[in-house]
Amino acid sequence: MSSLLEQTLNAISTPNVSIEEAARERLRQQARPAGSLGMLETLSARLAGIAGTLNVHLNQKVIVTCAGDHGVVAEGVSRFPQEVTKLMVLNFVNDGASINVLARHAGARVCVADLGVNCDFSPDLPIFHKKVAHGTGNLAVEPAMTREQAIRSLEAGIEIVEELLQQGPLDILGTGDMGIANTTPSSAIIAAFSGLEASEVTGRGTGIDDSALQNKIRVINQALKRHLPNPDDALDVLAKVGGLEIGGLAGLVLGAAAHGIPVVCDGLISTAGALVACKLDPRAKAYLFASHRSVEVGHRFMHQQLNLEPILDFGMRLGEGTGAALAMEILDASTRVLADIKTFDEVAIADAQK
Amino acid sequence: MSSLLEQTLNAISTPNVSIEEAARERLRQQARPAGSLGMLETLSARLAGIAGTLNVHLNQKVIVTCAGDHGVVAEGVSRFPQEVTKLMVLNFVNDGASINVLARHAGARVCVADLGVNCDFSPDLPIFHKKVAHGTGNLAVEPAMTREQAIRSLEAGIEIVEELLQQGPLDILGTGDMGIANTTPSSAIIAAFSGLEASEVTGRGTGIDDSALQNKIRVINQALKRHLPNPDDALDVLAKVGGLEIGGLAGLVLGAAAHGIPVVCDGLISTAGALVACKLDPRAKAYLFASHRSVEVGHRFMHQQLNLEPILDFGMRLGEGTGAALAMEILDASTRVLADIKTFDEVAIADAQK
Repeated sequence: MSSLLEQTLNAISTPNVSIEEAARERLRQQARPAGSLGMLETLSARLAGIAGTLNVHLNQKVIVTCAGDHGVVAEGVSRFPQEVTKLMVLNFVNDGASINVLARHAGARVCVADLGVNCDFSPDLPIFHKKVAHGTGNLAVEPAMTREQAIRSLEAGIEIVEELLQQGPLDILGTGDMGIANTTPSSAIIAAFSGLEASEVTGRGTGIDDSALQNKIRVINQALKRHLPNPDDALDVLAKVGGLEIGGLAGLVLGAAAHGIPVVCDGLISTAGALVACKLDPRAKAYLFASHRSVEVGHRFMHQQLNLEPILDFGMRLGEGTGAALAMEILDASTRVLADIKTFDEVAIADAQK
Repeated sequence: MSSLLEQTLNAISTPNVSIEEAARERLRQQARPAGSLGMLETLSARLAGIAGTLNVHLNQKVIVTCAGDHGVVAEGVSRFPQEVTKLMVLNFVNDGASINVLARHAGARVCVADLGVNCDFSPDLPIFHKKVAHGTGNLAVEPAMTREQAIRSLEAGIEIVEELLQQGPLDILGTGDMGIANTTPSSAIIAAFSGLEASEVTGRGTGIDDSALQNKIRVINQALKRHLPNPDDALDVLAKVGGLEIGGLAGLVLGAAAHGIPVVCDGLISTAGALVACKLDPRAKAYLFASHRSVEVGHRFMHQQLNLEPILDFGMRLGEGTGAALAMEILDASTRVLADIKTFDEVAIADAQK
């Protein structure tokens, strides 16, 4: 293991348990039936423990959308050609994509990162230039990455967190993805970690038909049989059947956790990255929030492995960080629930409850 | 039927179908896989049809929290004494309650309405003064209201919408409730309309224990058997087993629908009101959005009757309009999805999709 990754894993600590307990106590004493705000209470107490205060403010919100290409696109696993990855990166920079719209609504800034798009962007393009390779190998016939590339993709994610922190305060980080064909490695990752059959964890991505879905399942099975990724070695799984942007997404989670920043992961691909991060260090889970449950069937198995309840369930399947942006609004609201709803004492009706 | 109610029912028309279809077409042409934003797409298209434009702005958001007391509190169906209704109304006005916090986060204004609290508020208190009676009768032994009182509660809700419109533009209305013991009439309402057993639709409200729950079910069964509310006569159901604030909440839905304003209903009690409204005129459904699925078991049967999919599912059971406030943020986001995400043509990658 290389130095930055090792340092980052060593830097992850647990959130402040006594602040989290104080948060739960304040929630119980608020002038409303105990537990009546359900998930908002759980979220706000976790955020308090992470921030170390009952009065959490998520003013500085950033969504990092990691982009990368995938050699497996050659197997016909996506409805879209590889060039769309590049075009969408430009669309993100031009502020016209779905994530731009939803991040703006959430008061979040969108940062785009190139982990492995199969083109050469101008160095002037305002993105994080972290290209590890021009796309992965076709996992149907070769490992997606070398172990060294996988480590570099993780460290790129960590570096992005550190560069963001050099720019100023960062209260919450959202993750998002762009990469044509990247539901294939994501489904392969959950299959590798869970031992579930590819047919149980593979969905239609951008909307492939029945025969393309069967082909996608075949490709994933072939990759798993050929490369035998070791579920007890997350780097092995990431390298053999993962993706460059998935490594970047895992690195974002590790970097955020190491710096005590809550991180909300988006859909199937972002959650695949989060799963790799938490397999590398389970302590990262304490900083992680699951934004939504997508229609991709593999997503729920990832949430099971992470023991996370997704906040939203809108039947989405877009990526980019769109679910993370929406969930940030709910997380933000939860911080106000904890800090601003008055207790029975504060409203002087303490005696009213029987 | 009295005049204002009759006029309002006559004024409800259907949303603009061609605008809604144009919205769905624009959503399909946006630079992302068709359907990939799931429920956000459905919500935004409905809002477009209601507003008659693809560029909907929900700038003026108001949540009306209707308060009323219930004679059935004498049966021991709630953990809280009746005085809490009054105290919480004052807490709303003092800006310290849950709904104040969540409405502020959503950019919504909270208006409180007294439909039937068992006290006399100062006329100077900045609320809608619409008291029909000092609480309902105990539905276990007598009808909750006369038919005339039920009509007056409906008309009070309609009047509130009209008074709000006199104050200025209103882009979306949220409904909320406050009334100790009001889950009991709400469960009775869904039992009456659906024919389901009281035991199937009755929950723990603010958190009663097993024996209190059995008593609550007994009370509802007794009321249904004694008064035989006619499910084909929504006014009869409202009068016999409803509540004054529930009538107000139904009136809000009818008033909003008549004025072409979308209305997002909160939890069990608000949805009971919405159900009464839609039984009085099914055309009101087209203006109605279900904010969340509460833990109250009767709520899902109301959503089934209304054919509405709740937006959020946070395990909440508070009322006040808290779920409506949260859902307004999602509805607001959906309007930006429709208007602001660029189409393939707009980003000049129309040919990229295979």
